[in-house]
Amino acid sequence: MLARFSRFLTLVVVLAVAPSAGRALGQPNTTDPLPSWNDGPVKNAILTFVRETTQPGTAKFVPAEDRVVTFDQDGTLWVEHPMYTQVVYCLDRVPAVVKQKPELKDVEPFKTVLSGDEEAIAKLPMKDLEEILAATLTGMTTEEFKADVKAWLRTARHRRWNRPYTELTYQPMLELLTYFRSSGFKTYIVTGGGQDFVRVYAEKVYGIPPEQVVGTMGGVKYGYGRDGRPELTKEPKLLLNDNNGGKPEGIHLMIGRRPYAAFGNSTGDREMLEYTGAGDGARLMMLVLHDDATREYAYGPAQGLPDSKVGTFTLGLYDEAKQRGWSVISIKNDWKRVFAFEK
Amino acid sequence: MLARFSRFLTLVVVLAVAPSAGRALGQPNTTDPLPSWNDGPVKNAILTFVRETTQPGTAKFVPAEDRVVTFDQDGTLWVEHPMYTQVVYCLDRVPAVVKQKPELKDVEPFKTVLSGDEEAIAKLPMKDLEEILAATLTGMTTEEFKADVKAWLRTARHRRWNRPYTELTYQPMLELLTYFRSSGFKTYIVTGGGQDFVRVYAEKVYGIPPEQVVGTMGGVKYGYGRDGRPELTKEPKLLLNDNNGGKPEGIHLMIGRRPYAAFGNSTGDREMLEYTGAGDGARLMMLVLHDDATREYAYGPAQGLPDSKVGTFTLGLYDEAKQRGWSVISIKNDWKRVFAFEK
Repeated sequence: MLARFSRFLTLVVVLAVAPSAGRALGQPNTTDPLPSWNDGPVKNAILTFVRETTQPGTAKFVPAEDRVVTFDQDGTLWVEHPMYTQVVYCLDRVPAVVKQKPELKDVEPFKTVLSGDEEAIAKLPMKDLEEILAATLTGMTTEEFKADVKAWLRTARHRRWNRPYTELTYQPMLELLTYFRSSGFKTYIVTGGGQDFVRVYAEKVYGIPPEQVVGTMGGVKYGYGRDGRPELTKEPKLLLNDNNGGKPEGIHLMIGRRPYAAFGNSTGDREMLEYTGAGDGARLMMLVLHDDATREYAYGPAQGLPDSKVGTFTLGLYDEAKQRGWSVISIKNDWKRVFAFEK
Repeated sequence: MLARFSRFLTLVVVLAVAPSAGRALGQPNTTDPLPSWNDGPVKNAILTFVRETTQPGTAKFVPAEDRVVTFDQDGTLWVEHPMYTQVVYCLDRVPAVVKQKPELKDVEPFKTVLSGDEEAIAKLPMKDLEEILAATLTGMTTEEFKADVKAWLRTARHRRWNRPYTELTYQPMLELLTYFRSSGFKTYIVTGGGQDFVRVYAEKVYGIPPEQVVGTMGGVKYGYGRDGRPELTKEPKLLLNDNNGGKPEGIHLMIGRRPYAAFGNSTGDREMLEYTGAGDGARLMMLVLHDDATREYAYGPAQGLPDSKVGTFTLGLYDEAKQRGWSVISIKNDWKRVFAFEK
């Protein structure tokens, strides 16, 4: 499931910030809804879009019930390097799975994961990763799964920052979520990650309730537990791979409306942005470019950035963005601050 | 898809309306939120549930974000006899499908539908009906489908009342939807009917937006039309049969929260009510009983009502309702008025 969004492209667009644009936005404005964004064309495009779509009686006005904005998660709302957080969770769960099924101990790819050999684990092919995801994300009830993810999130730490993963959200994007919501937009996550996984923390971390999280969906099966209580069990059955074309498909299934704005950062988001842009009236499409190795990470391979299996941003996506008029958010140039914990 | 919710049970519960209950509700109250409901235990249970779950600081209080109530559609919010509205739509679409694929003209079950022989059509087995549903509900873009359903709803009439199907909604249930919403509940449809079909009119007819319609889901496929524009095509691929166990499964996928109240009318709703009732705190589960042949229809086979392929309410469901404390809404006794157009 997650394995499928492993091919991204990266784009660097040099955003020449015209001084006049900065002034036009009212730089020292105390009511700036996006204080962690540098003034410039990207910030300006966001503010203009929201202003135009929320002014009644104007050509680009969008009625409140149609104000839908979708955000990819990994690499768009929080850090996805060196590995998707959910994959880290799955690898961490392997010992518990093997304890329940000892026969897996000497079977690949479980054997490699248990060895702790990080180099070998990093080299596991997609097929093996998918097998690990299936083994670690299914077979339990939805309630058990939720409790397990919650417990893991409390203790797991991202090595580079030694902080919980839920602190590695991008401060400028959190401001953007709040800004859209205060302007009457309904904010949705549309992620290649597992829907049930992201829902565990999305409300607390992003202010996005479970019903507004669209993700890769596995089947669940209704049944009765030992005490006769109804329960739903997670099945190894893929209903929707919410990547690439699966993103507009998931949007149709779960929301039933075309978004007016969409944010992504990789090839897995291409179709979501295309679908959003194909609607009438004002539409806003943006891609986050990871071009800041100092404050976060730098990966492409577009624009000469290092290639990456995780969050790939190809030259083709870069060309499409230029051609269709999608904006590119340069972390280096557009974000004053990346994380809330930065001083 | 629709064919699967063809086995219901019907229950008649004789609701002895204690005069004191009537007075307690303040019968001649001008602010009665449910004016089309007769006073009695059912109405009282609804009012009590809403009062208790919305009073901060009390034991049964439910925070606003958790206030989810789900409604089956066919037979619960609108008329389902003598045939589900969506099946009528599909049968009406057969000539258009055959025009595009003339080779179907002499092939069953299309031949029978084209013959117009109503008795023979009524006898078509489920397998044939499913074939007709697949042929008439897939192959077009989601936009084309929406436009076609809209056009059909404008002209199609229910024979008994010679009125558009969208006028055959139950007035007491419309009041209930409004009452729940004004009490901070999010109202969802959870229907065995096709999600895309119901979404076409749910907002206008019930005030329920597309993202709050959970139904039987067919797959859609992302692609590009002749003009290169992105589009979604409806595929003959069943993702979720939103009946029976599929209802709690669909609720989990689409809402991600357990409802606090659920309304249904047939065996297809049993698991949704079980799942709702298995939660902690105050929960409200109700089944509509069609026991009024004069104003609407009467069918069971529970409680000696005539058996029915459409909206079956078995003795087993009746027993489970009694055992679990689910209320039964008697159309005959609990509804002062069935339709808005009644004088």
